[in-house]
Amino acid sequence: MRLTVKEILENNEKYLNKVIEIEGWIKNSRASKNYGFIELTDGSSFESLQVVYDDKLPNFSEIEKYTLSSSLKIEGEIVESPGAKQPIELQAQSIEAICISDKDYPLQKKRHTMEYLRTIAHLRGRTNTFNAVFRVRSLIAFAIHKYFQDRGFVYVHTPIITASDAEGAGEMFNVTTLDLKNVPLEDGEVDYKKDFFGKETNLTVSGQLEAEAFALAFGDVYTFGPTFRAENSNTPRHAAEFWMIEPEMAFVDLEENMDVAEEMLKYIIEYVLENAKYEMEFFNKFIDKELLSRLDNVVNSEFARITYTEAIKLLEDSKHDFKYPVHWGVDLQTEHERYITEQIFKKPVFVTDYPKDIKAFYMTENEDGKTVAAMDLLVPGVGEIIGGSQREHRLEVLKDRILANGMEPESYDWYLDLRKYGSVVHSGFGLGFERAVMYITGMSNIRDVIPFPRTVGSAEF
Amino acid sequence: MRLTVKEILENNEKYLNKVIEIEGWIKNSRASKNYGFIELTDGSSFESLQVVYDDKLPNFSEIEKYTLSSSLKIEGEIVESPGAKQPIELQAQSIEAICISDKDYPLQKKRHTMEYLRTIAHLRGRTNTFNAVFRVRSLIAFAIHKYFQDRGFVYVHTPIITASDAEGAGEMFNVTTLDLKNVPLEDGEVDYKKDFFGKETNLTVSGQLEAEAFALAFGDVYTFGPTFRAENSNTPRHAAEFWMIEPEMAFVDLEENMDVAEEMLKYIIEYVLENAKYEMEFFNKFIDKELLSRLDNVVNSEFARITYTEAIKLLEDSKHDFKYPVHWGVDLQTEHERYITEQIFKKPVFVTDYPKDIKAFYMTENEDGKTVAAMDLLVPGVGEIIGGSQREHRLEVLKDRILANGMEPESYDWYLDLRKYGSVVHSGFGLGFERAVMYITGMSNIRDVIPFPRTVGSAEF
Repeated sequence: MRLTVKEILENNEKYLNKVIEIEGWIKNSRASKNYGFIELTDGSSFESLQVVYDDKLPNFSEIEKYTLSSSLKIEGEIVESPGAKQPIELQAQSIEAICISDKDYPLQKKRHTMEYLRTIAHLRGRTNTFNAVFRVRSLIAFAIHKYFQDRGFVYVHTPIITASDAEGAGEMFNVTTLDLKNVPLEDGEVDYKKDFFGKETNLTVSGQLEAEAFALAFGDVYTFGPTFRAENSNTPRHAAEFWMIEPEMAFVDLEENMDVAEEMLKYIIEYVLENAKYEMEFFNKFIDKELLSRLDNVVNSEFARITYTEAIKLLEDSKHDFKYPVHWGVDLQTEHERYITEQIFKKPVFVTDYPKDIKAFYMTENEDGKTVAAMDLLVPGVGEIIGGSQREHRLEVLKDRILANGMEPESYDWYLDLRKYGSVVHSGFGLGFERAVMYITGMSNIRDVIPFPRTVGSAEF
Repeated sequence: MRLTVKEILENNEKYLNKVIEIEGWIKNSRASKNYGFIELTDGSSFESLQVVYDDKLPNFSEIEKYTLSSSLKIEGEIVESPGAKQPIELQAQSIEAICISDKDYPLQKKRHTMEYLRTIAHLRGRTNTFNAVFRVRSLIAFAIHKYFQDRGFVYVHTPIITASDAEGAGEMFNVTTLDLKNVPLEDGEVDYKKDFFGKETNLTVSGQLEAEAFALAFGDVYTFGPTFRAENSNTPRHAAEFWMIEPEMAFVDLEENMDVAEEMLKYIIEYVLENAKYEMEFFNKFIDKELLSRLDNVVNSEFARITYTEAIKLLEDSKHDFKYPVHWGVDLQTEHERYITEQIFKKPVFVTDYPKDIKAFYMTENEDGKTVAAMDLLVPGVGEIIGGSQREHRLEVLKDRILANGMEPESYDWYLDLRKYGSVVHSGFGLGFERAVMYITGMSNIRDVIPFPRTVGSAEF
């Protein structure tokens, strides 16, 4: 394998006084009369390697003109650095240009707006901010896999194209191979028998129901895949395509479900803090000055657990002037969620046992007949980051809930089967992956944590 | 966390002579006059826990009637087992039914065809075969992540919904929110300005081009996500929805690309052999008796590397009677690929430098002007399992290739940018995830390695 900047920086004593060869891009460059400096990156590390060169190089006067992001091949000796920033630097013996960037390279040395950088999503990974964001995104993804795999969970790829609607609601994208110029109709309706799958199909909004089937075979499972919403909402928090993690656990009730959610979230944050020190310091300095203290607080606090009914009481007692008035039965708005977690508890809070009328049909009905065994995790700075529940495992109760929600039990035959054959208490939750990335990086727009975001009116690249 | 079968089996000395409580499902059950046996599974392990009970239990006569897959809560003592199969067993002190499976439970004690089991994909994970398949599928997925993350690769989520076509070919699924009963037309063409993204969009066939953009910022990256083909091919090897892994590496040429592919494949196989001993023994016994010896051979051999031109010569010299005749210029068929890897080399073989006319536009043109720096990895029992190439990094050559393939350079503006700004030699490959799962498990139909497969005419669950 080739020698990387990361390898050199992490093992600088090993390379001290050695002659090496390395390829990379110019991240920064400055020169005076007799010598020059290049910050060289090869993408392997958030930090770059300082390269020093002088006028003994035959192409000295060319080198200082090389444009940003030009690719170079450099030979030289690793020496101790007189500067304080890094212990070592590369004293160049030869610098060879591979490809000089065109002069119109859009990422010149100046601040660019996030909006502008979105228009060059194929290049923005070369900036400090996005280099850090997408490196951390990758680490969070791996931390999630590692958390679940270390605990024996089976990773399930639930289907992306689906003929069912997991929530009985939600705007969906149609998936079709019909000729849109000439859609076959029968009695005024689309004749989906002529479509690829022989029926109407959509992009999935959740893999939960299929994950439940697997939990009742494998005990503990999780999904991690893309999900879709065709909602016409142009906000910093909504994308049409986003990734979701949905663990599902047999023999696990609502309390243990919260235990796992809490442990998982802490694990991910600790993993990133440990494996992306420079990136996290960068975010704390340039994106959100309270990021590290907020994350430390999450890792080190025991999450509070209150019922929805208690939450409503606390909000009412607060006498705070909310935009959306609060009373038992309303769904909590972000302002309410943030008030609870930021003002009242000053740490993450699970809110449980919501009114059944504002929650999905598959949640376990509580004995009071009014609430369901749901849980939302609220965190400071964001509001809801995780939503989950104990699933209704009683066949007759589930059938009634399906009917009460105006859905057809026949469409849920296989889902009901899971309650006919060895049904057990089981629970799960959903974590919006991008929401987690935003929370951990401090980035405030979902478009800036997705490599090539898809939002209403935009599917570039 | 709850006590699992896996925990008990792996640490049996710790639990010996301890009284425990456990929940699970009946995998098998038999009883005689005064005592009975239950094989209990909770999904945590491929193996089950043997439970012994006798007529001292007040519900003894009930227990033997419990149907397969019924869920139970059992209290008892872990004792040494007189049988040879497992060192311990659970001597039940109480057995409580949670949910007795309906009598029509479809997975009774008999052999079922794979075809039938596909119709109950929500339950087939409870059979030995599918329990092993999907557990191993999960392990392979994690092994892939671990291989790349351990080497500093950045995981990139390339877009699922896309307005471009990575290969300039391939049948694609349309993604739309237009009302199919009433598609807006303008001058006889679909008016995509009214669609969700304001343009025509499809499901991705490959994330490679976007991955290249990230490789030129992060050095080493990989994708792992779903890809789609709307091909009307009803074969055991094709699905409409499948997952793909696409590593992409800057500063890496075709030779090093092969090094990574070889190392990765060996790593995955070794990971599975180590972490799924029982499952792999099961496959070797019941699915494919040559599986383990074939995989051992892959792990322990150095893969051969020959050019396409050499391969054609070897096939011609073999005098073998192929269905598809062989001469320089033809694409290799599966029969040719398998002959090379199974008959000639008896181990995995990389074939490189294919004629440019049968390969994609983005591959580096070799100096001979006739071939491109492509590589396919052929393995015994399957044929091609990996396809990759060194990417064309020279701006003008790439433009010519785009034109020569009848495509419009304007549609590839951003992709060409990567050759204008610090272009470097870079390479990558694609591994079809399901093909890898089939190869490692010995399963012969792609429908049987995907939790809920999507194929032409079928999108159940």
